[in-house]
Amino acid sequence: MSVDDKLKITRLLDELGVHYVEGGWPGSNPKDAEYFDRVRALRLDRVRIAAFGSTCRVGSSPEDDANIQALLDAETPVVTVVGKSSVLHVREVLRTTPEENLRMIQQSLAYLKAQGREVIFDGEHFFDGYKADPEYAESTLRGAVDAGADTVVLCDTNGGSMPWEIETITRDIRRLLPEVNLGIHAHNDGGVAAANSLAAVRAGVTQVQGTINGYGERCGNADLCTLIAGLELKMGMVVLPPGRLSQLTRLARTVAAITNQRLGRQTPYVGRSAFTHKAGMHVAAMRRDSESYQHLDPALVGNRARVVVSELSGRGNLQSKVEELGIDDLDHSELPEVVQRVKELEHQGFSFEGAEASVEMLLHRARTDYRPPFEMLDFMVVAEQRKGQGVFAQAMIKVRIGDEVFHSAADGNGPVNALDRALRKALMPVYPHLDGFDLADYKVQILNGEHGTGATTRVMVDMQNATRRWTTVGASANIIEASWIALADAVEYGLSTCGAH
Amino acid sequence: MSVDDKLKITRLLDELGVHYVEGGWPGSNPKDAEYFDRVRALRLDRVRIAAFGSTCRVGSSPEDDANIQALLDAETPVVTVVGKSSVLHVREVLRTTPEENLRMIQQSLAYLKAQGREVIFDGEHFFDGYKADPEYAESTLRGAVDAGADTVVLCDTNGGSMPWEIETITRDIRRLLPEVNLGIHAHNDGGVAAANSLAAVRAGVTQVQGTINGYGERCGNADLCTLIAGLELKMGMVVLPPGRLSQLTRLARTVAAITNQRLGRQTPYVGRSAFTHKAGMHVAAMRRDSESYQHLDPALVGNRARVVVSELSGRGNLQSKVEELGIDDLDHSELPEVVQRVKELEHQGFSFEGAEASVEMLLHRARTDYRPPFEMLDFMVVAEQRKGQGVFAQAMIKVRIGDEVFHSAADGNGPVNALDRALRKALMPVYPHLDGFDLADYKVQILNGEHGTGATTRVMVDMQNATRRWTTVGASANIIEASWIALADAVEYGLSTCGAH
Repeated sequence: MSVDDKLKITRLLDELGVHYVEGGWPGSNPKDAEYFDRVRALRLDRVRIAAFGSTCRVGSSPEDDANIQALLDAETPVVTVVGKSSVLHVREVLRTTPEENLRMIQQSLAYLKAQGREVIFDGEHFFDGYKADPEYAESTLRGAVDAGADTVVLCDTNGGSMPWEIETITRDIRRLLPEVNLGIHAHNDGGVAAANSLAAVRAGVTQVQGTINGYGERCGNADLCTLIAGLELKMGMVVLPPGRLSQLTRLARTVAAITNQRLGRQTPYVGRSAFTHKAGMHVAAMRRDSESYQHLDPALVGNRARVVVSELSGRGNLQSKVEELGIDDLDHSELPEVVQRVKELEHQGFSFEGAEASVEMLLHRARTDYRPPFEMLDFMVVAEQRKGQGVFAQAMIKVRIGDEVFHSAADGNGPVNALDRALRKALMPVYPHLDGFDLADYKVQILNGEHGTGATTRVMVDMQNATRRWTTVGASANIIEASWIALADAVEYGLSTCGAH
Repeated sequence: MSVDDKLKITRLLDELGVHYVEGGWPGSNPKDAEYFDRVRALRLDRVRIAAFGSTCRVGSSPEDDANIQALLDAETPVVTVVGKSSVLHVREVLRTTPEENLRMIQQSLAYLKAQGREVIFDGEHFFDGYKADPEYAESTLRGAVDAGADTVVLCDTNGGSMPWEIETITRDIRRLLPEVNLGIHAHNDGGVAAANSLAAVRAGVTQVQGTINGYGERCGNADLCTLIAGLELKMGMVVLPPGRLSQLTRLARTVAAITNQRLGRQTPYVGRSAFTHKAGMHVAAMRRDSESYQHLDPALVGNRARVVVSELSGRGNLQSKVEELGIDDLDHSELPEVVQRVKELEHQGFSFEGAEASVEMLLHRARTDYRPPFEMLDFMVVAEQRKGQGVFAQAMIKVRIGDEVFHSAADGNGPVNALDRALRKALMPVYPHLDGFDLADYKVQILNGEHGTGATTRVMVDMQNATRRWTTVGASANIIEASWIALADAVEYGLSTCGAH
């Protein structure tokens, strides 16, 4: 992530209403140091910025430790200091004595407290350490508390603990240190990071660490979206300021876009498919009682229910889709034909799950009064590389609008870009508001992988204007044709439904 | 999935050693009926095949119910029958009385038992039903048991229950029905499907339902891979026959390939990144103690540890990579230059996380004695569509092998396929074993989405021969060039490292 990206996400997290953002490790790279310089200029409402670092090194004192000094130089109100809570790691990784590790923790925290910082202590490998040597693991926490730590965080660094272990051990610590703010830091290596975090909260923890969408090493950190929704909706706790929970889905998707990560469709609460219904039986039940196959109202987290139209679904799903879309002027006797068309196209490699704009276009085209804004006649794309001269791509395209034929050509930095530009060039004189449409995402999937590059290619295109975002699909053995189909569908959808505003 | 795909997966699940495979709903579509016809011909070792269906309909008797008859016609040793355990759903969705629902459950199960089937009863919406009306929910289970059900499954159909609820309610039922085999069926809507399933096992359940990789509607079902590994490695239970657990990773990836679904890299236990280490600090620690940042030995589940080389990693990671790959004859003074090259390429849009073959090629190319098997000179690709005549793609390519220049041309059903074919045509006379290399997967990611089709394109190529699979990366604003780079790297890697066998 660039520093700009990190600042953008910081602002989003503040708007959501989280309490802390750990912005980076100022001692580890110059980008993080720049972030802390620039984040001070942001006008943040609620969030407190924390800089992350480790205790001073073996044998060094905090005053002389570059890492600790970098933490101070970050000039954040909060510092998070990680130290080892497992005697095994002290011996094997730090290669020092348990006593020296305790000294490093205590002196580092005491020094940072003396500089006026709020100090969060992350006890690395705490649960593993506690299972092997509970007394030593406890002593690291006590040392941190004695040195003035404001919060002491129990870390399941390797993510291997199970919820019942987390709950039992956290209750032990809660009893031992009744006055201390406790935190939990869970990883998903056992597939139970969310459950572990919630179990710790049940056992008395008040700070929950995690990342948006669970980004993190190996199997990821605990997913804050799942946790925030779980804490508020399943445990009745107040985490965010009133009314903010419904920003959750948008936040998750925006952070995914900024970090250029795929947000899994099936991600709990915020995924695109989290409230999507496909089985005919489920859809039929939903038509009777909207709560029958969803655990809560998706609007609570800013998501929405969707009905999926696919090969296996019948008229019922398409009927629900027509209602969902509010296409009032469609003759319902046309539906069986649309179902048939969906089946044929899915057989060719299209997939309408998620490509709702393409489904909507199939429905619109079934209306007798539908007039397509343009008709594609021909295209040709050339991509070429000659040693030493770089790569060239260009496209020619011929479309009909009404009775007129437009023939255009454009360069591009790639063949799909050249096609996109040639298409826009042909259509813009008639549809100038096309200028406001951006291609926001473009995905390619290879079907029947065993055929290698000879396999069918499925392309999904996300297009957006200032207010909406829509997805279309194309499929062909030829990636250029598949891209063309999805691109043209996306443009046609935009021109047909978004109007000239 | 095709019937062939389902049969293939059935065989794989049998080899893994699961106890039951629910093969489909014979009453719902002809493909499922065909599956049951053909699965009888498979020689299965351990797995028992179950057909899935619902109870007879409101007002009908099992003898006259098409759905129940289809279950029998499937001729499986086991049938799974779903019935409603929530009085709300009985009233709102079935629109009948609680008594009629009990009759439907009891008569359906008794009838199927009388036909000699092992009967599993899935209590749909059991947990939600129990929270609202525990007596009625219990009565549906008792009805099923009285009618002869062999196993009674508690379903969290909407996936909204939390582990502590699941554990408490399951313990209640365990006490009420002490002699009955209980099962759990969890969904991931709250992000805790795995934890819910494991909690139920702790409360006395002996059958765990789920799907490989968690495939399923909305947020998916409980992931059997996570559960099998968790039950065996975290709870010390015996689930699979001895020695089978190490097949788990291969199984997960094979099923993903067959179903053409992406297996998330971060999937617990079996994902490609599940044991991948990136942070320099973690890698340094791993070099001291391999267990310091992983919760178990990845070999237990057939996975492996990997070190990731990326922009942010320094010499230490690359050093680990060199050792992991066993590149003995590399002059280590070359490493800083390779690190520099990695940084430059990542700046251009390459990503070496996961593209290990491309990293290995960078290292090989740093060896003074490395001789590339071929050198690319020029390429040109044309893709064209004329109304009514279909789509055409062709490529020309010029490569140098030793002192000789080979110029070839090929058609393809897409531009990348045409390139692939032209490249093979040029290289095959000199490297005939190239014939055994297949392009197994091909992924495209758009970076900086805000630039639409003008953005940088990153292509990842998976190539395989009979024994290995490797991944390479290419990036460019031009998708054809990005594809070319990844493709050529994959071919060069295969020719350089796989030998002529």
